[in-house]
Amino acid sequence: MKIDNSPARGTRDLLPATVARRDHVLAAIVEIYHRFGYRRIETPALENLDRLTSGQGGENEKLLFKIMRRGLPEETEPGTRVNDLADLALRYDLTVPLTRFYGANHATLPTPFRSLQYGPVWRAERPQKGRYRQFVQCDIDMIGEESVLAEAELIEATTQALAAVGLTGATVRVSDRRFVAALAQAAGLDEAVWPAFFIGLDKLDKIGWDGVRSELEAKGLPADKVGDALERIQKLRELPATSIADALADAVPTLAEDVIADLATTTASLAEASAVSWEFDPTLVRGMGYYTGQIFEVMHPGMNSSIAGGGRYDKLIGRSLGKDVPACGFSIGFERIVDLLGDAPAEDSVAVLFEKDVPAARAMAVARELRREGRTATVLGRRGKFGAQLGRLEEWGFTSFVHLRADAEPGAPLEQRPLGAR
Amino acid sequence: MKIDNSPARGTRDLLPATVARRDHVLAAIVEIYHRFGYRRIETPALENLDRLTSGQGGENEKLLFKIMRRGLPEETEPGTRVNDLADLALRYDLTVPLTRFYGANHATLPTPFRSLQYGPVWRAERPQKGRYRQFVQCDIDMIGEESVLAEAELIEATTQALAAVGLTGATVRVSDRRFVAALAQAAGLDEAVWPAFFIGLDKLDKIGWDGVRSELEAKGLPADKVGDALERIQKLRELPATSIADALADAVPTLAEDVIADLATTTASLAEASAVSWEFDPTLVRGMGYYTGQIFEVMHPGMNSSIAGGGRYDKLIGRSLGKDVPACGFSIGFERIVDLLGDAPAEDSVAVLFEKDVPAARAMAVARELRREGRTATVLGRRGKFGAQLGRLEEWGFTSFVHLRADAEPGAPLEQRPLGAR
Repeated sequence: MKIDNSPARGTRDLLPATVARRDHVLAAIVEIYHRFGYRRIETPALENLDRLTSGQGGENEKLLFKIMRRGLPEETEPGTRVNDLADLALRYDLTVPLTRFYGANHATLPTPFRSLQYGPVWRAERPQKGRYRQFVQCDIDMIGEESVLAEAELIEATTQALAAVGLTGATVRVSDRRFVAALAQAAGLDEAVWPAFFIGLDKLDKIGWDGVRSELEAKGLPADKVGDALERIQKLRELPATSIADALADAVPTLAEDVIADLATTTASLAEASAVSWEFDPTLVRGMGYYTGQIFEVMHPGMNSSIAGGGRYDKLIGRSLGKDVPACGFSIGFERIVDLLGDAPAEDSVAVLFEKDVPAARAMAVARELRREGRTATVLGRRGKFGAQLGRLEEWGFTSFVHLRADAEPGAPLEQRPLGAR
Repeated sequence: MKIDNSPARGTRDLLPATVARRDHVLAAIVEIYHRFGYRRIETPALENLDRLTSGQGGENEKLLFKIMRRGLPEETEPGTRVNDLADLALRYDLTVPLTRFYGANHATLPTPFRSLQYGPVWRAERPQKGRYRQFVQCDIDMIGEESVLAEAELIEATTQALAAVGLTGATVRVSDRRFVAALAQAAGLDEAVWPAFFIGLDKLDKIGWDGVRSELEAKGLPADKVGDALERIQKLRELPATSIADALADAVPTLAEDVIADLATTTASLAEASAVSWEFDPTLVRGMGYYTGQIFEVMHPGMNSSIAGGGRYDKLIGRSLGKDVPACGFSIGFERIVDLLGDAPAEDSVAVLFEKDVPAARAMAVARELRREGRTATVLGRRGKFGAQLGRLEEWGFTSFVHLRADAEPGAPLEQRPLGAR
């Protein structure tokens, strides 16, 4: 009988070594944010369907796992709309639940509220290598802080968290939505075409300057104004921290002073606080429509796409609360980071191997004693050939073993022998 | 505008203090099992609907959150069966996923495989106080160990885990399905009525001996045989460990010797290894139909129902694997235990409070220095009245604060002042 034990299509089981690696990364990240005062919250995996189809999620709303109402009749009435059969769905991100959570619980939360969330989200994407329909997101947000303290601290904490998990060589890219908007305006682009302009600009890394230019013209954006905008942007690349303020004021004279001052603060804080490299990147856009101020991305040489990203979103909480509350957040690409890193460091782990003629109670007592000394001790019966079993113990992650035999001298000290020295 | 920010009906948000308490309990439990060699695995929240409607889940299968197929037409065809519109469902426990996991991955897993799982499960129960539609289960299983080592170790580890979270005064109740079956047989009860007999017996705590007797007779079980069975059981209550073997052989002469020997081993191990109290409880049945050998429950004076329970289930893995594999497991009532315990111990946490005329960068630098010393430091702007803000800081869990003022002597040492001393 062949039984299908595969997990649901597009999902996966996590084996012990994989879970250990993930837990190791997560613990390092959580520890750093915790030191900065971020506290973990949890929201349910399920949200009301209406909330997940409000438009905020863009394309993700097309990838919902919808939950059927309970207590439906066995057969549908003629003309039943399929959407009416569902009332809930699995969350596709942690931002929609966070805004709802803040709306529901803000009265008892600190101001500003430093939130740390990690947990699974679900998207019914076409299954493909390395992409799963259930994956973990890790979001860090500061809600209620209007000053650039939020941006500066979030970048500092995030770069420290990435260093703590062992990711060195990361680069932080910083820009500001208000800058990109002012630049488009200064170049004379009509506000109606800004979204198209931003989307085109976002592709610079992939298709180059000429590619962006042709794509924008193909979309009907005026060639001269596109040329003007791209020229202003080109002047602003690879600037040292000290000349950013002047260069910005020069390239976009209409840019508000506080935008420039905030960018100067963030970049100065980056220069001071961490060993990470960074750049002001005038081509940075980021996908989500809800950003209102500074935006950031963290790149790593081992990955084509960013390993973390975020920004300020001062208008989003208002949708749940009825009044605007300033907010800024980072999303850490947990799955990408786990992929980038190797296995968790090997842990001390003793196998207490007992021959068939040794009572299990004796093996349990030996293991108990080892645990009292702070060791991890696992009781295992001897099975099969001795050498082959030692090989398996090593494969399973044991670092040493003791071998209990009935013919051993009573009271003789137990020898602990290392594994994996081969 | 009134906006509804409630979580989905029957679910709840977890605030930072609640999450901290839960994480504290979970970490203590995981640490203990880890020392015994149990390794965490994860399976997806979603399973194929067929797998969750195979009958193994009993009543839980009526409480499924079913997931609608993707790509359905907008309107259903006349006569569409509602069940055909769903292909997946949220798991209702961690046992079904574990057996599937073992079936899929056994070739790369240690023998025996010590598994630790925790994670949310979902049941569409009628919402009521203290019962949620999403809740966390915590299961510990040993798969592939046929000897009573599994039972003895699982009980030892579980009682240690409960002690580690701070639950003292627990009692372990032990019995064996093979004993209850042999007893029913010895009393002359027909095998067809055993399930009814077990269900009645299970209610002893609630309805007493006479209640059980009347209920079983009302169900049509022969009064004399019920009387015989209950009489045998009464003789076996509150036995000291040393006389269990003799008493069992005496009360149920047909009971197999290995059942008695295994019970003697488990109870001897309980008596030796832990300070927990325990009893052989001939009335213990436990609900799930899949148990095949010893069964156990942990009771606590603060709870009417058990805080952990489990047993041997040697025939369950076979349904996924195609051949039987011995297995034994414990499920810890994580939500009940969290309810029983108070808040997590308060942690050192410094608020770095800065006046409006102090640059945020200075506050960030002070916090950075505190973190370098290993402290948890949170930067907060001064808001409102000083005393009121200190009160809020205390409420939010801060244990001390430093106060940054622009008029402070440059270079003067920062004073850390305690909170919560009131």
